[in-house]
Amino acid sequence: MEIIRIPMIMLDVTMTKRMRGKTIGFVPTMGALHEGHISLVRMAKGENDISVASIYVNPKQFGPAEDFLKYPRDMEGDTEKLAREGVDILFLPDDSHMYLDGFTTQVRVEGLSERLCGFFRPGHFTGVATVVTKLFNIVVPHKAYFGQKDYQQTVIIKRLVKDLNMGIEIVVCPTVREKDGLAMSSRNSYLLKDERHAATAIYSCLKEASEAVRSGTTDVKELKRLMENILRAVPLVSEVQYASAYSPETLEEIERIEEEALLAVAVKIGSTRLIDNLTVVPTGDIGG
Amino acid sequence: MEIIRIPMIMLDVTMTKRMRGKTIGFVPTMGALHEGHISLVRMAKGENDISVASIYVNPKQFGPAEDFLKYPRDMEGDTEKLAREGVDILFLPDDSHMYLDGFTTQVRVEGLSERLCGFFRPGHFTGVATVVTKLFNIVVPHKAYFGQKDYQQTVIIKRLVKDLNMGIEIVVCPTVREKDGLAMSSRNSYLLKDERHAATAIYSCLKEASEAVRSGTTDVKELKRLMENILRAVPLVSEVQYASAYSPETLEEIERIEEEALLAVAVKIGSTRLIDNLTVVPTGDIGG
Repeated sequence: MEIIRIPMIMLDVTMTKRMRGKTIGFVPTMGALHEGHISLVRMAKGENDISVASIYVNPKQFGPAEDFLKYPRDMEGDTEKLAREGVDILFLPDDSHMYLDGFTTQVRVEGLSERLCGFFRPGHFTGVATVVTKLFNIVVPHKAYFGQKDYQQTVIIKRLVKDLNMGIEIVVCPTVREKDGLAMSSRNSYLLKDERHAATAIYSCLKEASEAVRSGTTDVKELKRLMENILRAVPLVSEVQYASAYSPETLEEIERIEEEALLAVAVKIGSTRLIDNLTVVPTGDIGG
Repeated sequence: MEIIRIPMIMLDVTMTKRMRGKTIGFVPTMGALHEGHISLVRMAKGENDISVASIYVNPKQFGPAEDFLKYPRDMEGDTEKLAREGVDILFLPDDSHMYLDGFTTQVRVEGLSERLCGFFRPGHFTGVATVVTKLFNIVVPHKAYFGQKDYQQTVIIKRLVKDLNMGIEIVVCPTVREKDGLAMSSRNSYLLKDERHAATAIYSCLKEASEAVRSGTTDVKELKRLMENILRAVPLVSEVQYASAYSPETLEEIERIEEEALLAVAVKIGSTRLIDNLTVVPTGDIGG
């Protein structure tokens, strides 16, 4: 596995590979890699001639009160995992190369960025859209891979790529879960033992709501009540930021499940913020 | 000259040329081409294997009270001019291909976009930065050519390209002027005969200020008074939006000419808004 730290060299390497007709699959990450990341890496390897992963904890997508400083970092472990998977290139930029003196440009996907997580994390998705635009321009991949766990992020990046004519295919891969259903996340490492147990309520409430839809419930008020009740029954859930059904395209809250819908949740367990989602289709759709 | 209207086809064509090792020079324009544009085209042809020009009057860089609808359009004349210069490819997108349903992404170069013209044209440079990002992603040039007349635009685009790692060299070409010094601009066609005569005051005031600097004036208050007096002496100059000396990098107004500086002017003559600029160095610098 080749390790590259300088954006200009990274660009040079992938442009040379492209000139030789190679396809490039890219997995941008913030490190602290888990099975979810590894599933993206395997997809990227399977579908492209060259696989590139990046690890960069982007300061611009963390709010001032957020966990940038304590965000888990494990460069050695991550490098080993990626090498073991046979990743061809690991891009490892540092802040001084990513944000040069006088840096001031922002890429903002209006509307989509202010909903759901964006409401609770102002500026977060502009930070994400900006760094992803940069990484895409540096790596110039044919395809880029993201996990469905960060559903809003995938919608925003798809829109961004379309709006700015980036000519990159965005592949969204299924959420990878622990045995008890908890979505894999680098932030799970923050959880104390009791909190880890409490966190299973997130997937339970999504599962229950999804089963309610399968049994014919279409009223979102009812689903919301069901989800909130499950979450609020857990004392360690300190805040339910959102838990409802949304349009999978616009991310706006809907009133009835009439076509494919997104069930999405964000909670705080102690001081750890966790998110998860499932897509559902109404029963009526299945028959015909 | 090949004419391409669809972004995906344009991208395909230039990527194929790049794969064959060809360099691509790009001149983005809003049409109504004059000698200034032609000088850019000649530079692009001279320095690259393939020259691409685009004509697109971008609605997103015009304010609601601005001249989008009456902006001069001369597709036939423009096409003829570019073909005569031996341009290889003319990219001619339409709105429906440039701004798809649901378009919402904005590229904003903060700080630089709010000064000078940006103060009088809110949103203008975000419209410019967004469309230029799109055009760069569609044409994927090695070099792109802009005129110094739109000085602030060149500073913003250089910053944008650097900040977003676009890997494109921005070439700024000298302002081309009419015999009496008026900077060539598509908007000059709006001027009635008397207004056209009055417009020469713009270059005169820049020239006089630049000569004052050459004679040792370094106090910007003094230069500003000189420039404003010349402009305000012309009855058809209906508004002086700005006329002063600025940092060529940050575009902030300066107090003294201590190193290279930008003299820049924006006025309204009747209802036509015109801009121009000159760079100057203090006399002290010349001796060393």
